[in-house]
Amino acid sequence: MVDLAPISSRLAEQRIELPSWAFGNSGTRFKVFAQPGVPRDPFEKISDAAQVHKHTGLAPTVALHIPWDKVDSYDDLAKHAEDNGVALGTVNSNTFQDDDYKLGSVTHRDDRIRQKAIDHHFACIDVMNQTGSRDLKIWLADGTNYPGQDDMRGRQDRLHDSLSKIYERIGENQRLVLEYKFFEPAFYHTDVPDWGTSYAQVSALGERAVVCLDTGHHAPGTNIEFIVMQLLRLGKLGSFDFNSRFYADDDLIVGAADPFQLFRILVEVVRGGGYGDDGDTAFMLDQCHNIEDKIPGQIRSVLNVQEMTARALLVDTAALATAQAAGDVLSANGILMDAFYTDVRPALAEWRAARGLPEDPMAAYAASGYGASIVADRVGGNQAGWGA
Amino acid sequence: MVDLAPISSRLAEQRIELPSWAFGNSGTRFKVFAQPGVPRDPFEKISDAAQVHKHTGLAPTVALHIPWDKVDSYDDLAKHAEDNGVALGTVNSNTFQDDDYKLGSVTHRDDRIRQKAIDHHFACIDVMNQTGSRDLKIWLADGTNYPGQDDMRGRQDRLHDSLSKIYERIGENQRLVLEYKFFEPAFYHTDVPDWGTSYAQVSALGERAVVCLDTGHHAPGTNIEFIVMQLLRLGKLGSFDFNSRFYADDDLIVGAADPFQLFRILVEVVRGGGYGDDGDTAFMLDQCHNIEDKIPGQIRSVLNVQEMTARALLVDTAALATAQAAGDVLSANGILMDAFYTDVRPALAEWRAARGLPEDPMAAYAASGYGASIVADRVGGNQAGWGA
Amino acid sequence: MVDLAPISSRLAEQRIELPSWAFGNSGTRFKVFAQPGVPRDPFEKISDAAQVHKHTGLAPTVALHIPWDKVDSYDDLAKHAEDNGVALGTVNSNTFQDDDYKLGSVTHRDDRIRQKAIDHHFACIDVMNQTGSRDLKIWLADGTNYPGQDDMRGRQDRLHDSLSKIYERIGENQRLVLEYKFFEPAFYHTDVPDWGTSYAQVSALGERAVVCLDTGHHAPGTNIEFIVMQLLRLGKLGSFDFNSRFYADDDLIVGAADPFQLFRILVEVVRGGGYGDDGDTAFMLDQCHNIEDKIPGQIRSVLNVQEMTARALLVDTAALATAQAAGDVLSANGILMDAFYTDVRPALAEWRAARGLPEDPMAAYAASGYGASIVADRVGGNQAGWGA
Amino acid sequence: MVDLAPISSRLAEQRIELPSWAFGNSGTRFKVFAQPGVPRDPFEKISDAAQVHKHTGLAPTVALHIPWDKVDSYDDLAKHAEDNGVALGTVNSNTFQDDDYKLGSVTHRDDRIRQKAIDHHFACIDVMNQTGSRDLKIWLADGTNYPGQDDMRGRQDRLHDSLSKIYERIGENQRLVLEYKFFEPAFYHTDVPDWGTSYAQVSALGERAVVCLDTGHHAPGTNIEFIVMQLLRLGKLGSFDFNSRFYADDDLIVGAADPFQLFRILVEVVRGGGYGDDGDTAFMLDQCHNIEDKIPGQIRSVLNVQEMTARALLVDTAALATAQAAGDVLSANGILMDAFYTDVRPALAEWRAARGLPEDPMAAYAASGYGASIVADRVGGNQAGWGA
Repeated sequence: MVDLAPISSRLAEQRIELPSWAFGNSGTRFKVFAQPGVPRDPFEKISDAAQVHKHTGLAPTVALHIPWDKVDSYDDLAKHAEDNGVALGTVNSNTFQDDDYKLGSVTHRDDRIRQKAIDHHFACIDVMNQTGSRDLKIWLADGTNYPGQDDMRGRQDRLHDSLSKIYERIGENQRLVLEYKFFEPAFYHTDVPDWGTSYAQVSALGERAVVCLDTGHHAPGTNIEFIVMQLLRLGKLGSFDFNSRFYADDDLIVGAADPFQLFRILVEVVRGGGYGDDGDTAFMLDQCHNIEDKIPGQIRSVLNVQEMTARALLVDTAALATAQAAGDVLSANGILMDAFYTDVRPALAEWRAARGLPEDPMAAYAASGYGASIVADRVGGNQAGWGA
Repeated sequence: MVDLAPISSRLAEQRIELPSWAFGNSGTRFKVFAQPGVPRDPFEKISDAAQVHKHTGLAPTVALHIPWDKVDSYDDLAKHAEDNGVALGTVNSNTFQDDDYKLGSVTHRDDRIRQKAIDHHFACIDVMNQTGSRDLKIWLADGTNYPGQDDMRGRQDRLHDSLSKIYERIGENQRLVLEYKFFEPAFYHTDVPDWGTSYAQVSALGERAVVCLDTGHHAPGTNIEFIVMQLLRLGKLGSFDFNSRFYADDDLIVGAADPFQLFRILVEVVRGGGYGDDGDTAFMLDQCHNIEDKIPGQIRSVLNVQEMTARALLVDTAALATAQAAGDVLSANGILMDAFYTDVRPALAEWRAARGLPEDPMAAYAASGYGASIVADRVGGNQAGWGA
Repeated sequence: MVDLAPISSRLAEQRIELPSWAFGNSGTRFKVFAQPGVPRDPFEKISDAAQVHKHTGLAPTVALHIPWDKVDSYDDLAKHAEDNGVALGTVNSNTFQDDDYKLGSVTHRDDRIRQKAIDHHFACIDVMNQTGSRDLKIWLADGTNYPGQDDMRGRQDRLHDSLSKIYERIGENQRLVLEYKFFEPAFYHTDVPDWGTSYAQVSALGERAVVCLDTGHHAPGTNIEFIVMQLLRLGKLGSFDFNSRFYADDDLIVGAADPFQLFRILVEVVRGGGYGDDGDTAFMLDQCHNIEDKIPGQIRSVLNVQEMTARALLVDTAALATAQAAGDVLSANGILMDAFYTDVRPALAEWRAARGLPEDPMAAYAASGYGASIVADRVGGNQAGWGA
Repeated sequence: MVDLAPISSRLAEQRIELPSWAFGNSGTRFKVFAQPGVPRDPFEKISDAAQVHKHTGLAPTVALHIPWDKVDSYDDLAKHAEDNGVALGTVNSNTFQDDDYKLGSVTHRDDRIRQKAIDHHFACIDVMNQTGSRDLKIWLADGTNYPGQDDMRGRQDRLHDSLSKIYERIGENQRLVLEYKFFEPAFYHTDVPDWGTSYAQVSALGERAVVCLDTGHHAPGTNIEFIVMQLLRLGKLGSFDFNSRFYADDDLIVGAADPFQLFRILVEVVRGGGYGDDGDTAFMLDQCHNIEDKIPGQIRSVLNVQEMTARALLVDTAALATAQAAGDVLSANGILMDAFYTDVRPALAEWRAARGLPEDPMAAYAASGYGASIVADRVGGNQAGWGA
């Protein structure tokens, strides 16, 4: 069994934020399959998220999505979170579900609609001020479906203008985090399609504006860890949205589609100072559990990140540097692969046990009876989903 | 202006089937933007589809989707179509919106669910027998999201078994048309992902089982016209679902994303005997008009197909054969490009006028007032969409 | 340490064929970087290949490429192989380096050139008859660079005609193995671009014609293990060309780019009866070591295949079937991942030691001094490469 | 016939630079098919390039590639160009064909090799000073083939350091133009893989450092015109390398694979102030004519750019702006498509004739006898290619 002692304290630095919406129903354009026991309100979402932290110790905060998680009292919500052993985290804005946003939000040609979208972000900042959240995460569905539909340059300029107004409003200890996405829901062009655009836009704002990298938002064949390296080098990697994909933005469990890619990403995070107490790069999940159970799906996900982080921390960097310096291609690659192929799971089980956590969080959750209890208890009401 | 006389009668052979669902609301997993005036029932969909044919003469039939287009009396629906100058066409089955189909339909492990999916196809055949439809088109959402979720081989064998039972039920003058799709809504594997699988499956059934090629259902970089050529060569190209795409299955207006690709596809259709009276390859549209007007969107689409067909028919095949035989790469390519770059629109306007059709169908429809009338008239009720 | 006893005998069934050309120089269109010690003739290639088998016990045969490996006496070559503990295997034809083949070989319009290409395959069969080879592997560079350059349908028909003539010539115990490739070196269309085409072509020939699946020859996002499953189901998976890729046909060390994909492929091979003594699917490498050392590169490659095969054989198929039958998505996926994450390397080292093989073949080769000796000895002469 | 009068003077602003290497032999890693009549030295390449300008009036300058176009006297070469009616243009460096550069050039860990690569650029600047060239174009083959092979971050830092030294050396009226490329010849990572990296690197240098966009250097599905828009907006679009592709970096004739994409790119160039006298964005070709005739291939290419530029200039921008402002998706798209589908070729023939140029440059060149004369005259010597 591999010895985790040298990396034990580093492992303890890991904090992964869960998305509240992962506990609601989700699906594809073809069908949303509802699941029994799904939360009916933000409080129940927090309760479910707290289960993940309870069994793993990895997920101390929960991200909110406004308006999906709008409540009358954010103090009550924060208190509920605290009572359940977690805290509220990043606030995510939503400008893609109002009829006004059919052709755009912060990039819209119509001043009224653009201001409405800006105002929505102001409202999100108000929530942040109540919840004590650091990050305002902005993912935009803005884009066009047909060439000629709109003027891409004008939209880019309006994007800058809108973001400037939002940026002025955030506090000294808050950050504006701009996510990019290659395509979807727009088909022809996306207003923030790549890291270069997000980087150019946030650089024009200031120090507290940074980039969010969602691992599912790239063209086929993109070397994502290169972007991780570059954004860390440029001081602009604000956060990750972790998930995995085979084809498009599948939003599958992180590490499920290409575990070796996740490993390479984490190696670059560690190497570039983005991990744990080293830096300010937030780890978040952004996934959909369309057909699998949601709470165990999130437990599996944070464990995947933890296991792969352990492997990344185990890389023999001294030997690697020596092989690289010698131009020894096979040895350098071999040193990396050795860490990847190391089975860290038994040692991590011990590491967890030493911290009063269950050795097998999946089994512990299954044995807890929580899943059955919410199915029994949550009868009636409207299940949460992307629409509410 | 190019002389269309040599291809005039061939142009008259063109028949493009419209999908009833193109007139209902559609969208992405993020949002369906409803449009005013959208049909509330299959009769209204037929009325809208008839507008396309009225102004273009290109779209004499309308495909149905069961259960979305379920009615009490298909005789009444057929009569309504006839009254509006069109007829009912292909029947499309739907096995992706019942909760039972979460993990599969005709490939499901559970005999009950599999039989339910087969029975649904039997019901579709009953509809066909009432509407006089030739084709039963089967697109399956079956697949898995995670490696290991199910045994792909077992699913393939059950697929064969289910299709065999459905095939036995179709009439002597009917066809089973099996569509393939690279991905979506399943993320890890699709049970009929490529033309090879569809071809192998329909070949195992018999002569009246053929393949449907949807132009949006391929991996990036796929040479679709090669597949058209190959399926025509093998005698198995049953039908097209036309649309266009930039990234995934965007379902945009046919010809909107890569008009040259549409041209190359039609060149192969003509060359391989799949066009018009030459063969049995059906032309259908399968598109979504998420943000643009639906009836003009369909008019634009059939015109795009017609214009590109005209260009394909104009290829100087004798000169092309000579250049190809001489190994003259630039000349051969130049002959093809010459047809593509020919502006056929003015001549087609004349061709239409000579047949009592409007020179400019888009303008004619806009001037007709139909669009405004349905917005005014269709108040109340539930708009049609993918869910109903 | 995982217990390999239950799969020990199955591991012993593994045989991976090496390509002679992997030991010669190779590169990109930009530059071939020559390496010291590279073989000057087929005998030296065999000697190098034998080193791989000596240290791993996994690679008992070597594939030849004609004309690169043309020798005066194949008896002498076979004797040389035997003396070095290996044997000659598959014969690969080459119809892409003669000026006559600029616009095609077996698909060429010119009868003379087409016959020349057919004759080359006859010559390959003659070699097979001398070497006792079972398989004639045909990879074709045939295709076009520009739309219209040639008639794809005519080429497909000539392909069938040429293959028929070649097929008639092979012996009762020989096989014609047709490889497909998505693109390169042709840019617009490839005459055998996908498994469907290869399958349709070999099916038209007869039972002894089968498909070769090169793991680097697919569109981005293709589910390769699905194709493995399908070809095994259809009884047509003749052989693998293993390698790995990030973008195009990179021909990197197998398992280097996406080890989890290699695992999934091997799971389907085992499940479908294509592994070891179960079936007739040949395992071959087809790789280029452009910048890394060639012999250790091949050793690393066969070990990667062995390690991943061990993981595939370790899948708890009974538990997997139970979870699949229950529709338990997370558990089924978890059972598969458990095998993947198992570190089989220490147990495989013991397994090797028990068979008189070095525990660490990479280290054993490095310690052997063979690498230094060929650098010292192979001075003068022309190094082997793709051109000779 | 469309009236070109309104855009006649703008068409006259078009200048497209030809690559000297397009006239030498080129091919794939599998084979370079030599063509008769190919130049043996830089003087003959210039002579061939001049033929393109003679018949089209579009290509007044020729780019050099060092060391491929190294000559004893650049004055003589410039004089030769002038005598043939053209001038020397951009100087391209080459750091991918020396054995020292196997693992990198300006990013190499070894100070000696890195300095050698920097010195090569200094030598290129010396050439520029003799030829009066404005642009030093840098495309780097630097990258790695395997994860772990080298430290990407260190390479990025060394890249910055090397470029800084080169940038210091260029003159006040010269520019450093940094090209990016998604992949090839490196497989795992490329040191300048995307516009974001090139933009970040040149921004760190200064005003005279800009980006080169090669139309073939992107991931599948990338919206290239968006990048054109963004780089023009950021003031960093230095130049284009035009060509076309179906899959990878195919280097086919510009406009051959996706003419509509070329149109959209040119629309954004015109809209963003990058066309002709409006700005400083250089148009260059970077293509390979592997199987087609080279001089006619270049003539075809510049005509394709001219024809598509004419279409882009014909877009009814006022009507487009109105439709966009109204949110009329179909009309806005229709206005763009109307320009694309306009057949500008007859009017361009007249436009050329009015300027003393042949109406049909392809035919004029064919009739000139130049092609036959170089085949007859250029006997003996070594044909130029990528190696020399």
